[in-house]
Amino acid sequence: MNRRMVFNIIGYIAMAEALLMLLPALVALIYLEPGGWSFVISAAVCAVLGAVLILSSGTKDHTIYAREGFAIVALGWLLMSALGALPFVISREIPSYIDAFFETVSGFTTTGASILRDIEALSHCMLFWRSFTHFIGGMGVLIFIMAVIPNLADRSIHIMRAEVPGPVVGKLVPRIRDTALILYLIYISMTVLETVLLVIGGMPLFDSLIHAFGTAGTGGFSLKNSSITDYSPYLQWVIAIFMSLFGVNFNIYYLLLRRKFRTAAGSAELRIYYAIMITAAAVITVSILPRTSGAGEAIRLGFFKASSIMTTTGYVTAPYNDWPQLAKTVIFILMFIGGCAGSTGGGVKVTRVIMLFKSIGREIKRLIHPRAVARVGFEGKPLDDHTLHGVGSYFALYIAVFVCTFLLISVDGLTFEENLSAAASCINNIGPAFGRVSAGFFDYSGFSKVVLSLAMLGGRLEIYPLLLTFLPSTWLKK
Amino acid sequence: MNRRMVFNIIGYIAMAEALLMLLPALVALIYLEPGGWSFVISAAVCAVLGAVLILSSGTKDHTIYAREGFAIVALGWLLMSALGALPFVISREIPSYIDAFFETVSGFTTTGASILRDIEALSHCMLFWRSFTHFIGGMGVLIFIMAVIPNLADRSIHIMRAEVPGPVVGKLVPRIRDTALILYLIYISMTVLETVLLVIGGMPLFDSLIHAFGTAGTGGFSLKNSSITDYSPYLQWVIAIFMSLFGVNFNIYYLLLRRKFRTAAGSAELRIYYAIMITAAAVITVSILPRTSGAGEAIRLGFFKASSIMTTTGYVTAPYNDWPQLAKTVIFILMFIGGCAGSTGGGVKVTRVIMLFKSIGREIKRLIHPRAVARVGFEGKPLDDHTLHGVGSYFALYIAVFVCTFLLISVDGLTFEENLSAAASCINNIGPAFGRVSAGFFDYSGFSKVVLSLAMLGGRLEIYPLLLTFLPSTWLKK
Repeated sequence: MNRRMVFNIIGYIAMAEALLMLLPALVALIYLEPGGWSFVISAAVCAVLGAVLILSSGTKDHTIYAREGFAIVALGWLLMSALGALPFVISREIPSYIDAFFETVSGFTTTGASILRDIEALSHCMLFWRSFTHFIGGMGVLIFIMAVIPNLADRSIHIMRAEVPGPVVGKLVPRIRDTALILYLIYISMTVLETVLLVIGGMPLFDSLIHAFGTAGTGGFSLKNSSITDYSPYLQWVIAIFMSLFGVNFNIYYLLLRRKFRTAAGSAELRIYYAIMITAAAVITVSILPRTSGAGEAIRLGFFKASSIMTTTGYVTAPYNDWPQLAKTVIFILMFIGGCAGSTGGGVKVTRVIMLFKSIGREIKRLIHPRAVARVGFEGKPLDDHTLHGVGSYFALYIAVFVCTFLLISVDGLTFEENLSAAASCINNIGPAFGRVSAGFFDYSGFSKVVLSLAMLGGRLEIYPLLLTFLPSTWLKK
Repeated sequence: MNRRMVFNIIGYIAMAEALLMLLPALVALIYLEPGGWSFVISAAVCAVLGAVLILSSGTKDHTIYAREGFAIVALGWLLMSALGALPFVISREIPSYIDAFFETVSGFTTTGASILRDIEALSHCMLFWRSFTHFIGGMGVLIFIMAVIPNLADRSIHIMRAEVPGPVVGKLVPRIRDTALILYLIYISMTVLETVLLVIGGMPLFDSLIHAFGTAGTGGFSLKNSSITDYSPYLQWVIAIFMSLFGVNFNIYYLLLRRKFRTAAGSAELRIYYAIMITAAAVITVSILPRTSGAGEAIRLGFFKASSIMTTTGYVTAPYNDWPQLAKTVIFILMFIGGCAGSTGGGVKVTRVIMLFKSIGREIKRLIHPRAVARVGFEGKPLDDHTLHGVGSYFALYIAVFVCTFLLISVDGLTFEENLSAAASCINNIGPAFGRVSAGFFDYSGFSKVVLSLAMLGGRLEIYPLLLTFLPSTWLKK
C-alpha cells in the first residue's frame, strides 16, 4: 500500500472542499446572512488540514493500484462528509454533529434523506451548501479533482473505477483527464439547461438552482417542506424528465455529442431503463387514478414518482405513503433497480439487473445441457466469467449490507415497514421512505443515524471501497 | 425429452398417492367419520389416473437426464397437490377448490400456511391427511418411490437431484435406492422417537402424531388454532429441539450411524447452522425478556421461535406479531436463511449462505490482487466456478421470484408488512407471517392464493424444475 500517495490525494480533496465552500459563503454575502462566517471558518479548517496532508506526504512513488484507489475514495468521502458537516454545526442551524454528519453524507451520496423537521427554517447559504453537496457528489469529487489537476488523472484509472458506479468502467477517450473533463462539461451543461427551463416556468432563480442541483446529482434535497408538490405541472414535468435524463449512462450523451445516434439508440441498457420506468409509471398511474382529478394528473404523478425513485432522486409531488399497496410495492422494487451504470443514480443499477438475469439464463442453459459451454453476451460483447461472478457477488453483498442495516436500525421503536424502507432508501440513495420516515429521519436515534450514514456511503461507493479500507490487510506495505 | 418416461413416473406418483390416501381413510374408520369416503373416492381417482398414465406410456427407452428429472419433479408435485386437494373439497370441509389446493400445496411443500379460520373444526381424518402431506413432502415423494420401486432408482440420480434441496446432492451409498431407503429409515425413526417423547409428556397419541409429522417435514400444521401455545413447557422444548434436528443435513445422521462422530462434528455447515440459531435465539430472548415471566420463559420462547423459523417449520408458542421490532427483524432474516441442505427445511439454505459469503471473499481477494488466482474452499473441498456461479444465480433468481410474488399479491388490500412477510413466508416454506397473516391467509383473494401456491412450490423445489418445465424448449424431442 502506497500510504503517502493515499494521504496526498486526500489532502487535495480537503483543499478542493475548502474552495467549494467559498460558494455558499458568496451566497451568504448576497443575502447578507451571518451563516457565511461558518463557511469561511470551515473552509480555513479544510485548507489547513489539506495543506498538512499534502505537505507531509510528499513522495516520488506515484503508483496507484486498486487498493490505493479504494482507500482514496473511501477515506476521501468520509473526510469530505466529516468536514462538510462543520458549517451546519458552527452556525448552530443543525446543532447536533451526528445530525449534521447524516445530512452531509445524505448530500454527498445524493441520497436526500433529511433529519430536518423544518427545511424552510434554514438560511439561504445553508440550503445552497446542502444542495451543492448533491451536485459535487453526483459526478464525484475525485472525478472533479482529476479534471482540474493536470498530472493526477493519467496516473491512475483505479480512482475512477472506485468512484464511478457500475460493474465496468470505461474511459470515453484515451486520456482519463479528458474523460473527466468531458463528463463534467456534459453534467454542467445539463444542469444549466434545467435551471433555465425552471426559471422560464416561473421558479425563482435560487430555487431553480437548488432543484437543478438536486436533480443533476439525483439527490432530492428541496428548499420546501412539501418538496415539489406545490409547483406547477410544467415545473413538475421539467424536473421529472430531467431526473430520468440524469439516470442515463453518460456515455450515451458522449455518443450523441459525437453524432453516433444509432449506437446510442441501440444501447440495451438505455432501452431497458426506459422500459422499466414507463411500465412502472403506468402501473402507478392506473393504481392512483381513482384518487386524482383525472388521467392528466395521474400520469404526471405516476411518471414523476417512477422517475424520481428509479433514478434514486427522491423528489415528491404527492402523498405517496397513502397510495394503494400496489403502487407502494412498485416504488419499493424500483428503489433497488436504480439508474444506469455511469449515471449519477444509485441502486443496484439497470446493467447489473440485466447481467443477473443473463447469469440466470446461462445457468438454465447449463442445467439443460450440462456439457455444452453456455455463453451470454451484453451490448454486443460476450460476458466473461469474472464479470458475471463479480456482479453475482456484488448483489449478494449488497443484500447483506441492506439486511444488516435493517437489523441494526430495528433497535429503535419504528415499525417493520418504516425500518425496511428506511434501510432500502439509504443504501439505494433515494431519500424518503414509508410511514413516519416519509417525512424525514428525525425519529431515529444517533446510533441508527450513523448506521444509515454508512449505508448511504456504502450504496454510493458500491461497498467494496469502504469494506476494503477497513480490512487491516489492505494497509500492509507490500 | 423422453416424454413417455416422464409420464410413466408421474403415473407412479399418482399410484403412490392413492395408497397414501388409504391411511386417512383408516383414521376415519377408527373415529367413525363420514369424511373417510372422500378419501376412498379420491384414492380411486388417483389410482385410475395413475394406471392410465403408466399403461399409456410404456417405453423401452428408460433414460432420464436432467430435463426429464426436472419435469418429473415439477409435474409430479403439481399433480400430487391437485389430487391431494380432492378429499377436502369432496367432503365439503374446505368447499373452495382454490383454498383446498392452497392448503394441500402448503402441506406437501411443508410450508404450513393455512386458509382455515378454525382448524379445530376439521375432522380427524382431514387433520391427519393435512399433516401427513407434511411428512410425505418433507423427505420427498420421489425419494419414497425410489426407495420402494426396485429398478427406478438406479436409472437416475437426476430425479433425486431435482427433489432434494441444496446446491450439491450427494449419494450416501453407491446405490441410489439404498440411499433413499436409508434416508427414509432415519426420517421415520426420528419421527417415531418424537411421537414417543410427546406421548410421555402427556400429549394424546393422535395429537403427538400430528405434531411429529409437522416437525419432521418442518411443516408446521397443528390441530389447534393456538398452534403449540397451550402445551406444557416440556412439550414445547421437545418440539423445539426436534425442529432443530430436522433442519440438519441428513448426511450427518448417516455419519453418526456409521460412528464417524468426528467427521460429523467437524461439519462447517452444522456448526454455522447452530451458531446462527443460537445467536438469533439469544437476541430474541433478550428482546422479549421484559414481556415474559422470567428468563426461563424468555429462553424457551426465544429458542422455540428461532428453531421454528430457521428450520422453516412455523409452529407458534407466543404472540410474536406484537414483539419488539428487533425480534421481528431477526425472525424475518431467519426466514430466508433456512435449514441445512439435505434437510427437510426450506429457505435459501445455510450452505448457500456460506457459499455466497465465500464468493464475496473471493471477489475481495480478486479486487486487491487482480492477477492472483483466488481460490476458496468449503468442508475441505475447493469450490469450483460452476458451483459458485450456480449459487450466485440461484440467489438472484430466488430474490426475483420473491419480489414477483410480493408484487403480484400487492393487488389485494393488505399492508406492506403483511404482503412482504406473506411472500417471504411462502417462498421460504414457513407458514405464518406478520400482521393479519399471522393468523392465516384467508384475507387473500383467489388470485393471490394461486400466486402464493406457486411460490411455495418454487421454494420447495428450488425454482428451476418449475421454471424449466414451463419453457417450451425443454419439451423438444432432441
